[in-house]
Amino acid sequence: MATDRRSAILEAAARVIARRGVRGLRMEELATEAGVSTALLYYHFKDRAGILRHTLEFISDRADRYTSEAGDGAGRSTEAPSDARTELERSLLLEFQDAPEVRENSTAWGELRASAIFEPELRGDLARATLAWIHDVADLLSCVRPMTPAPALTASAERLTGLLEGLSTRWLSGALPLDHARELVREAISVEIERLDH
Amino acid sequence: MATDRRSAILEAAARVIARRGVRGLRMEELATEAGVSTALLYYHFKDRAGILRHTLEFISDRADRYTSEAGDGAGRSTEAPSDARTELERSLLLEFQDAPEVRENSTAWGELRASAIFEPELRGDLARATLAWIHDVADLLSCVRPMTPAPALTASAERLTGLLEGLSTRWLSGALPLDHARELVREAISVEIERLDH
Repeated sequence: MATDRRSAILEAAARVIARRGVRGLRMEELATEAGVSTALLYYHFKDRAGILRHTLEFISDRADRYTSEAGDGAGRSTEAPSDARTELERSLLLEFQDAPEVRENSTAWGELRASAIFEPELRGDLARATLAWIHDVADLLSCVRPMTPAPALTASAERLTGLLEGLSTRWLSGALPLDHARELVREAISVEIERLDH
Repeated sequence: MATDRRSAILEAAARVIARRGVRGLRMEELATEAGVSTALLYYHFKDRAGILRHTLEFISDRADRYTSEAGDGAGRSTEAPSDARTELERSLLLEFQDAPEVRENSTAWGELRASAIFEPELRGDLARATLAWIHDVADLLSCVRPMTPAPALTASAERLTGLLEGLSTRWLSGALPLDHARELVREAISVEIERLDH
């Protein structure tokens, strides 16, 4: 029960942030959206910063889920390099889908990222979530090019995820068509993999 | 005089946006910050959307200025490829400087970009400013690798500028140290130029 309530609140928070931005998130509005009392918000999350932190986690988990869909079954370490590359591409390209859940999730992530400039208490969690993502992408790259030293893999993963964030904001703000964003990401992956061959 | 007043207002708008975000920009506060009446804001810029649009232009011009400093003298078309590469690196790396003006400018640009998701009337101008930037970077790339077909240059420029935006937000929100951001950009340039050689 408590878990359902918590999830319902975090789902509502992601929705409100994607609709009106982090700075548009008011506790009263969130309570209404989630169908709970404001007292329950404070009970579960202590304060607004607690809500934001847990929403960040909720969004990261949800992104993990939809970017690894159909990637079930075999573990990564046993994959052939060509399968690993397919998984890498799929995982990064799934950030660009015209599905309401993905659009909402990417909008909320971008908003949390952008507002961390103004709300320093978000920074620690955001930095950790970013690091985990970079690490996941570096892992996939290491399956594609197993002999590559770790620092080169990490740098590639930092560039790919950084590019993804940049293009995602362009896409969501209407400056970049979805198909073209996907094409640029696909090329970026092949550019980075070529680089690892040198 | 009128030009001075306009510039003072736009300078103040960039400052307020960098300090509190686009959504923190209130006409009354801006008037106080610029030392003018709100009536004068409306007289010069019609409405809040007009302020935002002109601030975007002001920020782009200012970035053009500090990213092309010391790049005066000879025109690009007469440059040797190695100088062109130096200019390209300098122009992109100058977005990452721990100078108050650059920090303020990048913060305001990122804010305008992020808020275009929620304020659609900003999108047209933002898309045009982005296109102009991509075009400038593609021009520099074409000096480095003159035989490259235009679409490949544009795609590289889109990736480099997209990466810059992504890394810039990470830097400004404290998730990425300045030196490391610069290193990633330097490598990204060399990765893209290698790509153009194939």
